[in-house]
Amino acid sequence: MLTLHGIFPPLPTCFHGSESLFPEKMQENIRILSAFPLAGFLVLGSNGELVMLSEKEKAATYHAAREAIPASKLMLAGTGAESTRETIHLTKEAVKAGADAVMVLNPAYYKGQMNTETLAGHYHAVGDASEIPVIIYNMPANTGMDMSAEIILNIAAHPNIIGLKDSGGNLAKMGAIIRSAKKGFRVLAGSAGFLLPALVMGASGGILALANIAPAQCCGIVEDFQQGALDKAQNKQHQLIAANAAVTRQWGVPALKYAMDHLGLYGGPVRKPLLPINKETKKSLAGILKDAGIGPFETNIIF
Amino acid sequence: MLTLHGIFPPLPTCFHGSESLFPEKMQENIRILSAFPLAGFLVLGSNGELVMLSEKEKAATYHAAREAIPASKLMLAGTGAESTRETIHLTKEAVKAGADAVMVLNPAYYKGQMNTETLAGHYHAVGDASEIPVIIYNMPANTGMDMSAEIILNIAAHPNIIGLKDSGGNLAKMGAIIRSAKKGFRVLAGSAGFLLPALVMGASGGILALANIAPAQCCGIVEDFQQGALDKAQNKQHQLIAANAAVTRQWGVPALKYAMDHLGLYGGPVRKPLLPINKETKKSLAGILKDAGIGPFETNIIF
Amino acid sequence: MLTLHGIFPPLPTCFHGSESLFPEKMQENIRILSAFPLAGFLVLGSNGELVMLSEKEKAATYHAAREAIPASKLMLAGTGAESTRETIHLTKEAVKAGADAVMVLNPAYYKGQMNTETLAGHYHAVGDASEIPVIIYNMPANTGMDMSAEIILNIAAHPNIIGLKDSGGNLAKMGAIIRSAKKGFRVLAGSAGFLLPALVMGASGGILALANIAPAQCCGIVEDFQQGALDKAQNKQHQLIAANAAVTRQWGVPALKYAMDHLGLYGGPVRKPLLPINKETKKSLAGILKDAGIGPFETNIIF
Amino acid sequence: MLTLHGIFPPLPTCFHGSESLFPEKMQENIRILSAFPLAGFLVLGSNGELVMLSEKEKAATYHAAREAIPASKLMLAGTGAESTRETIHLTKEAVKAGADAVMVLNPAYYKGQMNTETLAGHYHAVGDASEIPVIIYNMPANTGMDMSAEIILNIAAHPNIIGLKDSGGNLAKMGAIIRSAKKGFRVLAGSAGFLLPALVMGASGGILALANIAPAQCCGIVEDFQQGALDKAQNKQHQLIAANAAVTRQWGVPALKYAMDHLGLYGGPVRKPLLPINKETKKSLAGILKDAGIGPFETNIIF
Repeated sequence: MLTLHGIFPPLPTCFHGSESLFPEKMQENIRILSAFPLAGFLVLGSNGELVMLSEKEKAATYHAAREAIPASKLMLAGTGAESTRETIHLTKEAVKAGADAVMVLNPAYYKGQMNTETLAGHYHAVGDASEIPVIIYNMPANTGMDMSAEIILNIAAHPNIIGLKDSGGNLAKMGAIIRSAKKGFRVLAGSAGFLLPALVMGASGGILALANIAPAQCCGIVEDFQQGALDKAQNKQHQLIAANAAVTRQWGVPALKYAMDHLGLYGGPVRKPLLPINKETKKSLAGILKDAGIGPFETNIIF
Repeated sequence: MLTLHGIFPPLPTCFHGSESLFPEKMQENIRILSAFPLAGFLVLGSNGELVMLSEKEKAATYHAAREAIPASKLMLAGTGAESTRETIHLTKEAVKAGADAVMVLNPAYYKGQMNTETLAGHYHAVGDASEIPVIIYNMPANTGMDMSAEIILNIAAHPNIIGLKDSGGNLAKMGAIIRSAKKGFRVLAGSAGFLLPALVMGASGGILALANIAPAQCCGIVEDFQQGALDKAQNKQHQLIAANAAVTRQWGVPALKYAMDHLGLYGGPVRKPLLPINKETKKSLAGILKDAGIGPFETNIIF
Repeated sequence: MLTLHGIFPPLPTCFHGSESLFPEKMQENIRILSAFPLAGFLVLGSNGELVMLSEKEKAATYHAAREAIPASKLMLAGTGAESTRETIHLTKEAVKAGADAVMVLNPAYYKGQMNTETLAGHYHAVGDASEIPVIIYNMPANTGMDMSAEIILNIAAHPNIIGLKDSGGNLAKMGAIIRSAKKGFRVLAGSAGFLLPALVMGASGGILALANIAPAQCCGIVEDFQQGALDKAQNKQHQLIAANAAVTRQWGVPALKYAMDHLGLYGGPVRKPLLPINKETKKSLAGILKDAGIGPFETNIIF
Repeated sequence: MLTLHGIFPPLPTCFHGSESLFPEKMQENIRILSAFPLAGFLVLGSNGELVMLSEKEKAATYHAAREAIPASKLMLAGTGAESTRETIHLTKEAVKAGADAVMVLNPAYYKGQMNTETLAGHYHAVGDASEIPVIIYNMPANTGMDMSAEIILNIAAHPNIIGLKDSGGNLAKMGAIIRSAKKGFRVLAGSAGFLLPALVMGASGGILALANIAPAQCCGIVEDFQQGALDKAQNKQHQLIAANAAVTRQWGVPALKYAMDHLGLYGGPVRKPLLPINKETKKSLAGILKDAGIGPFETNIIF
């Protein structure tokens, strides 16, 4: 059984200026990032603009990513959709493409009806239908709902459900889940802003937007932590908080893509309604990255 | 230019037991409901499980609905998606099918980036691309975000954007929009729970889940209001509040579909993760409908 | 039994520059406002900075208000506190001062424990202890919690509890309460932004910050409504929305006090941490008042 | 200058059955708890029912607490009120009683007006007026508002403001504050549910409801952490999460007081509207305490 640990960047999906897929650029990013001690990659998470892509484009993206992701690194594929049938359909596409696990965002449009019964029913049906393990994805800032520890533990009882990416940042909830979940179930921090606190609470790694642009620092926090170098880990953690906020909560995917362009990867355009960040924000962001010690990839690559 | 007024039921999408589309049943519902003085129908709103359908199914549903909707009634088609390009794509399908207007739910996944600039950009691009008028759809309970009067007025400045369905229920906001929007722009109540207050504030009608099962009463409130029979209107309004809450906020689409089955229309199954309401809830709901004076369609039809 | 109807301004408490009470100025305001067909006055509501005053100052304010409020007008006294014992203590002070009813804001600090049992227990204890009727005050924007229709109906079952001021603006909830509450129980709109919608839903009046500066217009909406002049009422309602937002949600008590100064009443200083509005806001506010047709009191007084 | 570190229990205020103060019982609790390596005590925090007490009772409680708190332990006194003047008045009472520092909950009733300017103005005025250091208290679950890192850093610039108790649990925010605040400024976790994550982020201790009933375990987490025994610390942290939730968010002060009675301290009655927990909850709570390894004080005292 797959045991999740380490750092995974949630790859942005690359587009041409026309907004059509530009998979070669995503593949280039993967190749550059693969030089870092990352555990693998997430394709089509929130930073991959999953909700922006057609069904066909999603399948094409899974395949393109797998081609570039080395066998030594895991490929996690985001396959969540509002309906169980569509989620299963996408999961089967991800399996065909060679993903190692799928990550399933919870349905959230019918918030009033999303309770233990409907959500466990959903995830268990996906778990039954999937030939590869399933990871739960809790992302309150985007879905507008926060799955409780009780709901997550109910979902986690299924044998094919192996972990949770939690972007909510409620550390007590994370601890409650880690304490009570079955053996082998792993929790991954969903944001670099609380990576170190999550590790000390028992999380085994993180799926972090910031790992696309600061892979060395993100992996460094895990390494320092494992070696008991808490002061060094804390220092790195502190340094990353503002940069993480900038490319997530504050300015989002457009800022992450700009940062990638700025640092020597391919970020490229976002899909509308998202808009590129403006000149002033670009300048602020460049300053924040510098302050965080996040430099261009020529430098970082000598890891 | 199309001017919106009157009552529109947001039709549930009908499924077989296998969850595949059952368009004939939706067409039967349309035929039965067309006997009432409804202004038209909304296809693929929240009650139409829009987020559950594939692109193909959406197109098929537009076509099936138009076949059954009489030329004397308007067909509004829900075409909102997270990306502008997908929204435009669906809008073109709705035009092909013969819709009279499209209703566009706002993108809401990237909440942090959804501001005046991105949202006006989105709606204006759709307005430009659409051969038929566009209606804004604000649905905070499902999207987890509530577009402000300022954002809505910015969107509404586009000549091809003709109205708003507001399910938020903030009457002061509704009044502010009605006061300041361009001539001809119309606001429709998004829930039967506040239909009469919306009318007195200047709304011209409503798109109401409840109009699927209580069309006579919903139309009656508008009629009473227009004739100045406020006591009668208030009485009807009071009577509908609990039934409306039951089939929307409280138990949602599964309850609406059960109520339709219960009253002689076709409700049928929901798509998972939604689940049918249980026995106990069915009983409660039947009582609530009775208390609201909502009876089977044999009776109502002699309107 | 007292039956609530009509318009009540929630009087600001007046201070000297030193922030000490300046009751003579509140009395002057009362005298000027008493020329309008207001039903009465609320002393120590949210606009009365109730949470800013010491116990002694509250008692003094009740007494000063009663001296100035004509016998023909009702005096409602805000006596809500976090503890039941303090609420009862203040209620007895209000009775001594000659208030006609007390208005009790719900305790809200221990939000997690505020449920039907604790809240009904609280209000019923106050109802038992009070020689004058009790009005429930629901104010979600300030308390951070919104009492449900179910909780309010439970509280309202007590014979000495005669009404509700609801500032939440959920019209469906208001309708549900009006439909189910005992005979004689009255609901008052808590904000001028939704006065007319509340009236059409069955509310009998309002306790409105705006009634301090636009008493004629607020009373006019009720009058127009009662005479079936809905277009005139709607027009007045539309006109007041922006001005109401400005002196409540947007800029709050400091703006209301500035507006009073600006229009020929006494607003005066606020208590810290509140700060006077700045120059720019003053200018904006003056424009908004003008746009709303809210003029100086020399004009308005010839009602 | 005082530097905050270690664990502080926020003492419940003790009442007779009549709800009148029973300071002797609080003093007994202090004496029992003083045997543990606690850094000191907080008097009149949220668990001290601060909002339930009259001004006189607050002063009396400060004095009673100081009599019992050994000179070797710090006394922090909660003095927050909605007005700046009342906060200063209570702060002076706390100084007279011999408190070592005051902890000031932010005003929150006029949420719409509580911004950097008003809040920094408030805290700086208190800082100026106070002869002893001031600690900021951010408690979103009770106040209904969450002060941002930016606001807190603005407040923290004042030389007499030495720390923050943050009960919000946003670890990234905590890290941002710790990174940017002046030298000597200390952050304390406001809840035992995230004590260890807060420590790893740079917090120097905690003010924890749970420290009233599990002082050994709370102090043990800090000790283990300082000695680099992270596995032991994590184990203790996991064990305490459910018990902490039970006596805070879930069942609140009534549960904390029952737990104290249950474990050999004096909890006693709460003030209404709070109600004692019922039989069933008592049984559940006893089970949760047992599961957390929280035993009676005869055992724990041999620390």
